[in-house]
Amino acid sequence: MTTRKTEPPCEAAGAGLPTPLVAPPDADARSPVQDARFPFGASMRAGSDFLGDLFGRIADAGKFLTGLNETREADLTGLCDTLVSGRGEATGLAIACTILDRYAALTPAQKAAFFGVLSARFGVDLEALRAAYDKLQGGDAAAARAVHVAAEPKSQELLRRLNRAPGGTARLVAMRADLLEALPERPDLKPLDEDFRHLFTSWFNRGFLHLRRIDWGTSALILEKIIRFEAVHAIQGWDDLRRRVAASDRRLYGFFHPALPDEPLVFVEVALTDQVPAAIGPILAEDRTPLDPAGASTAVFYSISNCQAGLRGVSFGSFLIKQVVEDLRREFAGLRTFVTLSPVPGLRAWAGAAAAGGQLPDTLAAAVAVLEADQTAADGDAALAQTLAELAARYLVTEKAARGGARDAVARFHLGNGARLERLNIGADKSARGRGNAWGVMVNYLYDLDAIERNHETYAGTGEVVCARSVRRLIKAG
Amino acid sequence: MTTRKTEPPCEAAGAGLPTPLVAPPDADARSPVQDARFPFGASMRAGSDFLGDLFGRIADAGKFLTGLNETREADLTGLCDTLVSGRGEATGLAIACTILDRYAALTPAQKAAFFGVLSARFGVDLEALRAAYDKLQGGDAAAARAVHVAAEPKSQELLRRLNRAPGGTARLVAMRADLLEALPERPDLKPLDEDFRHLFTSWFNRGFLHLRRIDWGTSALILEKIIRFEAVHAIQGWDDLRRRVAASDRRLYGFFHPALPDEPLVFVEVALTDQVPAAIGPILAEDRTPLDPAGASTAVFYSISNCQAGLRGVSFGSFLIKQVVEDLRREFAGLRTFVTLSPVPGLRAWAGAAAAGGQLPDTLAAAVAVLEADQTAADGDAALAQTLAELAARYLVTEKAARGGARDAVARFHLGNGARLERLNIGADKSARGRGNAWGVMVNYLYDLDAIERNHETYAGTGEVVCARSVRRLIKAG
Amino acid sequence: MTTRKTEPPCEAAGAGLPTPLVAPPDADARSPVQDARFPFGASMRAGSDFLGDLFGRIADAGKFLTGLNETREADLTGLCDTLVSGRGEATGLAIACTILDRYAALTPAQKAAFFGVLSARFGVDLEALRAAYDKLQGGDAAAARAVHVAAEPKSQELLRRLNRAPGGTARLVAMRADLLEALPERPDLKPLDEDFRHLFTSWFNRGFLHLRRIDWGTSALILEKIIRFEAVHAIQGWDDLRRRVAASDRRLYGFFHPALPDEPLVFVEVALTDQVPAAIGPILAEDRTPLDPAGASTAVFYSISNCQAGLRGVSFGSFLIKQVVEDLRREFAGLRTFVTLSPVPGLRAWAGAAAAGGQLPDTLAAAVAVLEADQTAADGDAALAQTLAELAARYLVTEKAARGGARDAVARFHLGNGARLERLNIGADKSARGRGNAWGVMVNYLYDLDAIERNHETYAGTGEVVCARSVRRLIKAG
Amino acid sequence: MTTRKTEPPCEAAGAGLPTPLVAPPDADARSPVQDARFPFGASMRAGSDFLGDLFGRIADAGKFLTGLNETREADLTGLCDTLVSGRGEATGLAIACTILDRYAALTPAQKAAFFGVLSARFGVDLEALRAAYDKLQGGDAAAARAVHVAAEPKSQELLRRLNRAPGGTARLVAMRADLLEALPERPDLKPLDEDFRHLFTSWFNRGFLHLRRIDWGTSALILEKIIRFEAVHAIQGWDDLRRRVAASDRRLYGFFHPALPDEPLVFVEVALTDQVPAAIGPILAEDRTPLDPAGASTAVFYSISNCQAGLRGVSFGSFLIKQVVEDLRREFAGLRTFVTLSPVPGLRAWAGAAAAGGQLPDTLAAAVAVLEADQTAADGDAALAQTLAELAARYLVTEKAARGGARDAVARFHLGNGARLERLNIGADKSARGRGNAWGVMVNYLYDLDAIERNHETYAGTGEVVCARSVRRLIKAG
Repeated sequence: MTTRKTEPPCEAAGAGLPTPLVAPPDADARSPVQDARFPFGASMRAGSDFLGDLFGRIADAGKFLTGLNETREADLTGLCDTLVSGRGEATGLAIACTILDRYAALTPAQKAAFFGVLSARFGVDLEALRAAYDKLQGGDAAAARAVHVAAEPKSQELLRRLNRAPGGTARLVAMRADLLEALPERPDLKPLDEDFRHLFTSWFNRGFLHLRRIDWGTSALILEKIIRFEAVHAIQGWDDLRRRVAASDRRLYGFFHPALPDEPLVFVEVALTDQVPAAIGPILAEDRTPLDPAGASTAVFYSISNCQAGLRGVSFGSFLIKQVVEDLRREFAGLRTFVTLSPVPGLRAWAGAAAAGGQLPDTLAAAVAVLEADQTAADGDAALAQTLAELAARYLVTEKAARGGARDAVARFHLGNGARLERLNIGADKSARGRGNAWGVMVNYLYDLDAIERNHETYAGTGEVVCARSVRRLIKAG
Repeated sequence: MTTRKTEPPCEAAGAGLPTPLVAPPDADARSPVQDARFPFGASMRAGSDFLGDLFGRIADAGKFLTGLNETREADLTGLCDTLVSGRGEATGLAIACTILDRYAALTPAQKAAFFGVLSARFGVDLEALRAAYDKLQGGDAAAARAVHVAAEPKSQELLRRLNRAPGGTARLVAMRADLLEALPERPDLKPLDEDFRHLFTSWFNRGFLHLRRIDWGTSALILEKIIRFEAVHAIQGWDDLRRRVAASDRRLYGFFHPALPDEPLVFVEVALTDQVPAAIGPILAEDRTPLDPAGASTAVFYSISNCQAGLRGVSFGSFLIKQVVEDLRREFAGLRTFVTLSPVPGLRAWAGAAAAGGQLPDTLAAAVAVLEADQTAADGDAALAQTLAELAARYLVTEKAARGGARDAVARFHLGNGARLERLNIGADKSARGRGNAWGVMVNYLYDLDAIERNHETYAGTGEVVCARSVRRLIKAG
Repeated sequence: MTTRKTEPPCEAAGAGLPTPLVAPPDADARSPVQDARFPFGASMRAGSDFLGDLFGRIADAGKFLTGLNETREADLTGLCDTLVSGRGEATGLAIACTILDRYAALTPAQKAAFFGVLSARFGVDLEALRAAYDKLQGGDAAAARAVHVAAEPKSQELLRRLNRAPGGTARLVAMRADLLEALPERPDLKPLDEDFRHLFTSWFNRGFLHLRRIDWGTSALILEKIIRFEAVHAIQGWDDLRRRVAASDRRLYGFFHPALPDEPLVFVEVALTDQVPAAIGPILAEDRTPLDPAGASTAVFYSISNCQAGLRGVSFGSFLIKQVVEDLRREFAGLRTFVTLSPVPGLRAWAGAAAAGGQLPDTLAAAVAVLEADQTAADGDAALAQTLAELAARYLVTEKAARGGARDAVARFHLGNGARLERLNIGADKSARGRGNAWGVMVNYLYDLDAIERNHETYAGTGEVVCARSVRRLIKAG
Repeated sequence: MTTRKTEPPCEAAGAGLPTPLVAPPDADARSPVQDARFPFGASMRAGSDFLGDLFGRIADAGKFLTGLNETREADLTGLCDTLVSGRGEATGLAIACTILDRYAALTPAQKAAFFGVLSARFGVDLEALRAAYDKLQGGDAAAARAVHVAAEPKSQELLRRLNRAPGGTARLVAMRADLLEALPERPDLKPLDEDFRHLFTSWFNRGFLHLRRIDWGTSALILEKIIRFEAVHAIQGWDDLRRRVAASDRRLYGFFHPALPDEPLVFVEVALTDQVPAAIGPILAEDRTPLDPAGASTAVFYSISNCQAGLRGVSFGSFLIKQVVEDLRREFAGLRTFVTLSPVPGLRAWAGAAAAGGQLPDTLAAAVAVLEADQTAADGDAALAQTLAELAARYLVTEKAARGGARDAVARFHLGNGARLERLNIGADKSARGRGNAWGVMVNYLYDLDAIERNHETYAGTGEVVCARSVRRLIKAG
């Protein structure tokens, strides 16, 4: 189907300027927020058109919008100048709306250019900063805060004013996703990205988020995003989704922000079981028999996925897990154990490098060689499985990241939350990805509310990975 | 009725620490947010108890909460240290909750003392600031932003982390209301107040606000706040309220923030009429006959009130009026004129001082004397009324505030929004307040969407008050 | 305030016929549904106008609406003929709407006349009934049902078709309220009333009702109806209401029907206490200290009120109490006792008559005389109080209604529900009504879920009043 | 996936009786209401468990439930006796719940047997009927209504009482679906079915229904039912559904009843176009370009489907179309034409029989033969297409059903609604079904609000099919 160009919401609402809006030749659907909110050319849900008449008239008058016939980026820059300056204050929303519309119509290259202009033009006012700093004497609190104010990049005020537009938050999140895509080739934009991140951290404060259960009574609009953004164990269409959200022993929860009501920010999938699971296959199986959740003893977090590329670096996952633990405890009195079934994404890469670098004992290096030759080799080979377990334990427990903490990213997340590395499971993930990343090894991290603070303190303070004795014993054996 | 002490929400949820919570001896109902949200001892509406068990255990373990037996403020300071430091990160919400609970139980004097500690302890890290500044050379964007980061007072991070707690936003707004009360005697707390204002400006961005019509189908919880916070023409109980929200030719709209769902931030009262009104009495009359709104030509904004003391300096009124204008235009095609009926709060005080200082022409000074002798003197005296009109026009059009703009606060607000001073109305407000502030004079400011940008530019650029020729002519006559 | 005439919703929506709609000269606010739903001239909430254009055109064509210039009732009759006949089927909703509008504009006398016409014209088709009956032979099920169909009064089909109109259900409930008012002088309308009752019993089936808690977050629209319809212990304005719905130890629940979303059908007020109450005063006191509901042992139903005059004879109260018992049990695990504090409305009237008729023992008759001389006589007189208790026990336990069951209406309701007469309370209601009806006596009926079925069986089967031994002992003493 | 047996909601809620509930060996998913409401073993959404304790105790006492160890049907009969009799009134809901649970666990054969018992046992009380009839003299309205009351089959009261149970309405609708399945082999159950139909007609009165737009923001729970119940042009999975509900020029509306909130009763699919469509293919095409709905001139109803087998004979479709016409007119001012694109389901069957019976002119009979040999023959053959048009026009315009009205069921529906047969479209439906039923012919019926009443009167009064002159001319040519 030839999808009709999604009309930018403000433009659609009649806030258009005389210059015709040209669809970007290479527009794609990369930005989840944008295309998700306005599917199929549908207009915004509410109220975006209230600026139409207002803006139309101003635009006709043409007062502050000189230079509109120049290049698009120049227009945008001028509009941003106006918005930040406070000129045109009476119609600030209309200007913000126009900037966001125009921005949305840019090509990726134009966007990158626009970011460059933004970064250069809306940075810190160095004169003002120096003047403020010069007044800083002794330890005067007011003077120090004045330095802070003087040192604020103008881009932050610009972003705050853009956010006033209807749908502004969603569009700024999409804008940052674009920026993050541009970043690898434009490291100079890093400070601008920090401005986004700083504001988003404040706006997406956990206190503003709502936990919602996502089930079969949820809108298709949201459900299709769950399908799209599941990043750990891909969802194979609507039937698979139905099994994950509608079975009596399955739950799926997400955090939402009021300004993005149809956009999950992060979600977690939970299986209620009668034991700590040792493999992902039975959890995802099509033909399994659901459990009566009232009889479940264990809640298994088997997948956590972030949804918004534009919110990278704004962390919600830790809050989500703890909130879900509490909610499940209240709903099901029989639950005693809260545990993950997690991948070990960096195992194989690390092991290969360590073997190549001669950093592994011979038995382990030999095992790596066998597994590289046949990723399934440990399946029926108890000795190899035991060696693989030792290898994994060593990786998870003793290997550190350059910036501290566990080397494995997933381990770092859960250990930082105060979880304990509870158990290794060999042959737990027989998918191509599971084999390819970790020869099928998965891990259970245990969330024991009585211990998470102590665990966290230990891990954060000493760097020591908190793990079950049985896991540590694997290494001692090595 | 002896109202039982409102339990702080987190405490109520079981997140209590061993130290017993003592009700403040002089607790009052000053803070609108707090007592409004938890009326009559009712517990929080949702989800506040999820930290109960978690926190209980941690508290029992007592690990990071050393010093709990010391004074309350010291406890609070220590908890704030912990929260900002990131120690106790795994249980940050529980700590935030405890801080907010403890804070709520302080006396005003204890609160002021706590603010003093906060201000001193969570200020800018001057060493870090100097180090960052020293790296600032040339105009490196990243280095300049690093100064900004280094110059951030720690109080801002503290407030962001407190905001994570359930109900945190409402409680921080209440906390700032306390701070504003303490400010007159503690000017040293001004920088701390700026931290609040800075964050609130970001959090209460217009893009996050929702416009809601408030009518007779609205909850009593919200309606009673309308009664309480109406600051211009006091609402005389529920029957009066009903007339203002439920009559066919009346509207009341407010802005709400998702984190304070039952708290109007600011609201505006509108009368739909068939002419620009010259007096407030007929609008508020008990026995009037409502108009068919479909036939109305004019929307009159006759009262705008802010509700949240803790949000002082975070401006919404301008956005509110413009949004309501747009919404009404869509709903009622017949509306042609959008106008206020506004008080002139500073007229009499200015006139008295000017007369005393000999700055008025004799006729005006004489009129002041007559009016001071009898505030109603102009009622039946056409000549005096004419002189009073001249006096008012002179005050509104030519008198400037020290920091620029019109001297009258209400005039400053509407002129800054791009409205035009349209008409003076003598004898328009016969209430005690109306007489006492302005000998009964009221003003219409006109919101003409075709002109507001131009008006704003003129006013902001030149300082000239934009007004109707008929108003200006009054002065020329003088 | 001169309330503008409430426009009938359909008429307002443009469905009007050429004949001008004249406001009834003696229109009053008697019908709760009508005036409550359209307060202050506000139009209907949703969708009532969809028939406007449709109807306008048909009316212009004037095809089926012959006789429109005759008297109003004749018009209505003709429209009803058309609606029932199925002529005009394509536009049945518009006709139904017009009938309801026209009806609403009638005077009470015109309404009674209209009911008379309805009753005569839309009765049973006797010919058809006889024909169907003649085919009834043996016990053929189909033939018997055919008699049922043939015997259906046409008024039922008329009511069903009127109900199709937007807001039809509310307007039919209001219509029956009118009919019930007319009934005392028009006993011939009783069969028509039965048609209403029959349909309402089906439409207001308990399966269609929703239980809603009513609290301070409920709309003023509903809350003001609670004030208006409280029939047992009058609510003294909004502050009193607030105490009854917003205190931590108070609950108020109502049944609602989806077609009347803002109309409570019946509601019950509950106090959570730590003992079975012996008087109403402390429950309603302004200055009491609320109890922590988590510590409550007892739920007291201290008032049950029906709201819809038009639903007389359609019973909900029994379902309401039982549902609330279940809901409270789930919410508060500590609740052990569910009990009423009920008036004894018929005590004094019965006692006076019995004394006058010589049917009372001398001691009781003497007590009646004393109490008639001074309704408060028992207050400080233990012996008289004891005699009054005996009198009340005798009345409640041994006196039967003509049609069976307890003589006292409130007793009949609770005993029929399976409750037990648990305790008499002398001096329990010191209000004028309480004194006037029962010299201040109130009663606790106990809802013991373990026993209600057995109690009901006993009471329904044998007529014996189920009561506590202590109550029965009072009589034996007599 | 082995779907776990859906627990009946009441039973799940703890209202179970001692007798174990056995899953029916041949339980299938035939009943849409039941399996849709409780997908995947999920329990009922709200409040079903409130009867648990209550019922448990009563059941233990075992008072009225004698004979529980006998056969299941006997149990059910006894419970039904109890429910109707009013014995056990205090616990009527629990009994109703048990009956519905037990019923749900029966096999189809057991259900049919149960219906037989119901029909025989809960029929009309003939003695009472005769007694009432004997009192009928003259034309006494009360006596005639007494006959009606006496003639009511007890099954109706039974159904009303069953409806009181939580979820009762949905379960009764499912029960009738079972009954309709049994009916072909059990014509004696027809009167019982009439009882259901009679009550459902009252309960599903149009006044109780809500129109809802169904779009991509609707729950998957409802959307999957749209996929399942689309009966005209099958929906090919979720992507096809998305095109039909989320494209800017598509709408889908359904009627809902408050007691079945997640169950569409009937729905209609609408395409907004710029001309009256001549074929279904372009409307359903995957790769079409959506139209800007603001520019649409025509609304095309291209599919109407009933969803609830148990509501057969309770008609909503006419109301639905007219309501949607009104709603669309309000939303899109540019719409001028409301038209269907409808199948002609009976054309080929009729033509074949008529040809075989020698009732067709030779040219038509010959065309039938050609078309039977090759269903696509008319595609490129203009002469044959013309003859096929004549054949279709003759079928639609002149052929009558045995019970009157047009012979074609779809024609009968739309003509009865007051629509006009506007145009024949040859080669309009190239699907297997379209070819198989009508050699690809489709029809446009025009809904002209100015004419529908007149059209209806003509059609209903004279039986004449209202059609465009161009259609009639086709026949005259023949």
